[in-house]
Amino acid sequence: MIGSLPSFDRLVAELSKLPGIGGKTATRLAFHLLRASREDSQALAEAVLEMRQKVRFCSNCFHVTEADPCTICTDPARDETRICIVQEPQDLLAIERSHAFRGRYHVLHGVLSPLDGIGPDDLKIAPLLNRLKREPVEEILLATNFTVEGEATALYLSGLVKPLGVRLTRLAHGIPTGSDLEYIDAATVQQAVDSRREY
Amino acid sequence: MIGSLPSFDRLVAELSKLPGIGGKTATRLAFHLLRASREDSQALAEAVLEMRQKVRFCSNCFHVTEADPCTICTDPARDETRICIVQEPQDLLAIERSHAFRGRYHVLHGVLSPLDGIGPDDLKIAPLLNRLKREPVEEILLATNFTVEGEATALYLSGLVKPLGVRLTRLAHGIPTGSDLEYIDAATVQQAVDSRREY
Repeated sequence: MIGSLPSFDRLVAELSKLPGIGGKTATRLAFHLLRASREDSQALAEAVLEMRQKVRFCSNCFHVTEADPCTICTDPARDETRICIVQEPQDLLAIERSHAFRGRYHVLHGVLSPLDGIGPDDLKIAPLLNRLKREPVEEILLATNFTVEGEATALYLSGLVKPLGVRLTRLAHGIPTGSDLEYIDAATVQQAVDSRREY
Repeated sequence: MIGSLPSFDRLVAELSKLPGIGGKTATRLAFHLLRASREDSQALAEAVLEMRQKVRFCSNCFHVTEADPCTICTDPARDETRICIVQEPQDLLAIERSHAFRGRYHVLHGVLSPLDGIGPDDLKIAPLLNRLKREPVEEILLATNFTVEGEATALYLSGLVKPLGVRLTRLAHGIPTGSDLEYIDAATVQQAVDSRREY
């Protein structure tokens, strides 16, 4: 970018590695960091280092945490008979924001995706089966995304879990709140009709 | 964001201070930095610190530089009789990419903007007048942006520089290369007609 400024160019290169940030945005961010107060730029750098040092994955549910096991796994108010299975920590956060689930979680860290070479051994499936052996689980709520890979992963897990006699549930599939039927894709409308309920 | 993860939340807060990055993007970037290799996250943090430590503004032209004065100011192949005045270092880079100007530069670091409380003393105008006293300048190319503030700044500078007997020029104003007249705004078309040249 700027021939004689190796340290600036290096920062632009590092920022460009971030998802959704291309060369132009990276240059803009680097200029911002150059203009910001020294304390502000330093605070960002230190926040990255501190986060990497402190945040790990819970050895039980694989959610992000600073204390291991995480505060959800150790919360006695949580229903230990229910486990919600999600793809990513972000999905867990989305369900927590809904306040609709008070059990525990298990984060797979991905979904089955043969085309990308991601099989069962690349996900946190073995630790899940171990949890089912030692925890008094009565219900597993499958909350993988409603994508081809998410559905395939839910199906795969159901094959593993059903023989254990645990109740298996799946997030309801249908029309989102506040939306206009006119603009909903046909597959969703079809699911909503097929899964219609008494009113 | 995530109640029990102060270091993660702090990183999200720091990332949210960057221009064009809101809470959701900041969370996505923080998760990326959590998943990236420790070396990669560390490289980003160190690049921020190193850039801040090494990059400064040239004491002569106020472009970003690691060596003071900058490589443009000290390049003997550059025509020292011409100075191009730009708002920001990014604008200087745009002109350098065009390979059309082989003189030196002066970066104002902003434009006059009374509504934002930015007056002449907030820009690098006094150092410019000092340069004109000690450098053999014959031409000043005004390359502030073609916005209200950029034009006002160019006009203000012309009032200061004209009495010194230096030739004043301005970037040509007209239709950009590769563009379709149909989609060009009326003000630009008007300028292009008013400034039409022999062919």
